[in-house]
Amino acid sequence: MRDAYHEELDSIGDGLVDMARLVGSAIGRATTAILDADLKLAESVIAADEKVDDLQRDLEARAIALLARQQPVATDLRIVVTSLRMSADLERSGDLAQHVAKLARLRFPETAVPHDLHATILEMGQLAQRLMAKAAEVIITKDVDLALQLEHDDDAMDLLHRTLFQHLMDDRWKHGIETAVDVTLLGRYYERFADHAVSVAKRVVYLVTGEHADEIAPQDAVDAVEGA
Amino acid sequence: MRDAYHEELDSIGDGLVDMARLVGSAIGRATTAILDADLKLAESVIAADEKVDDLQRDLEARAIALLARQQPVATDLRIVVTSLRMSADLERSGDLAQHVAKLARLRFPETAVPHDLHATILEMGQLAQRLMAKAAEVIITKDVDLALQLEHDDDAMDLLHRTLFQHLMDDRWKHGIETAVDVTLLGRYYERFADHAVSVAKRVVYLVTGEHADEIAPQDAVDAVEGA
Repeated sequence: MRDAYHEELDSIGDGLVDMARLVGSAIGRATTAILDADLKLAESVIAADEKVDDLQRDLEARAIALLARQQPVATDLRIVVTSLRMSADLERSGDLAQHVAKLARLRFPETAVPHDLHATILEMGQLAQRLMAKAAEVIITKDVDLALQLEHDDDAMDLLHRTLFQHLMDDRWKHGIETAVDVTLLGRYYERFADHAVSVAKRVVYLVTGEHADEIAPQDAVDAVEGA
Repeated sequence: MRDAYHEELDSIGDGLVDMARLVGSAIGRATTAILDADLKLAESVIAADEKVDDLQRDLEARAIALLARQQPVATDLRIVVTSLRMSADLERSGDLAQHVAKLARLRFPETAVPHDLHATILEMGQLAQRLMAKAAEVIITKDVDLALQLEHDDDAMDLLHRTLFQHLMDDRWKHGIETAVDVTLLGRYYERFADHAVSVAKRVVYLVTGEHADEIAPQDAVDAVEGA
């Protein structure tokens, strides 16, 4: 049987999983909203971010109360401090999903995404959602291999981002400046969302191994793509 | 005389001020680098970000050691946890300054900023640097009024950002898509940098008053600009 202390620690972990699931759902729905120019869906994503913010505030309050009451040391202390950081990553991911939804709302009844980029944005949105689903799974399972896999998935996001830029820089771009600006921002939102999901997974690696993920997964693969 | 414990707490505060000064300098130099297409200066900003990352790691290690050894409660606990968050804001600000410098490097020997936007980007860079200088001062003085002033300054950043978008969306835009993409990203970097400086100041308000800055400064003024 677990004592009240460890139950509280577990419940902080549960809160992180709830946040990850909410923001994963949000980025998926925001992507649908922007591709379909669905105002109602966009509005629902924008409104739902409040729930993420509430969860974060609640989680932080509980983490700080736990620090004050239980004064954990060593591993437990590391878990609480790292949870605070993960909740910040997840809260920020929620903001980014909301930014996508706000862009959908701003351009309604038009869509911000031209037809020839529909597939790329859809892929970015789906990948972002999968990355966050995996991050949630990593929080639950503490599976270091799965966590390291997220970095590989993030390479795919970088490639999609690069594809987006190639379209933008192509002399045949015919969608004008406003759409170029929208697509640039969208690309940035998805890329940052993915970064936060990877960051959450890396923090779990740190908790499990005591080492930062960068020290485990060689950065060569990532660097090769970044330099491309 | 202060005990070793409070000296350690003070030294964490000093570390935050050092970080704020480094990233404030970085955004100023990155702005000069991008306006003047100065590759050497850009490279120096990119390299200097490592120092910011080192400072953050060091500061976090000391904060966690303090939590473990001294097990602070109440105000002191709040200070340590809030310091961790501020260091994350400052680390991210450093990344954003580095992004500006990387864009300068990418476009060298050209400049990413067309002549008619030179003044606006210069203003954004200077304002970003001033905001961070004020944030450092707020950390030192714990001056709540000065902290609330940062939100007002941030409104000016929002207006500059809007000016940038107006230029981009103007039918007479003649700088092509690549420059539009660059300017869109630059605008976003400065805006986020300013957000982090404001966030640092708000966290000091929280430390001093126990209330989040939003509950003190009415958001009406900000909302009016956002809605414009």
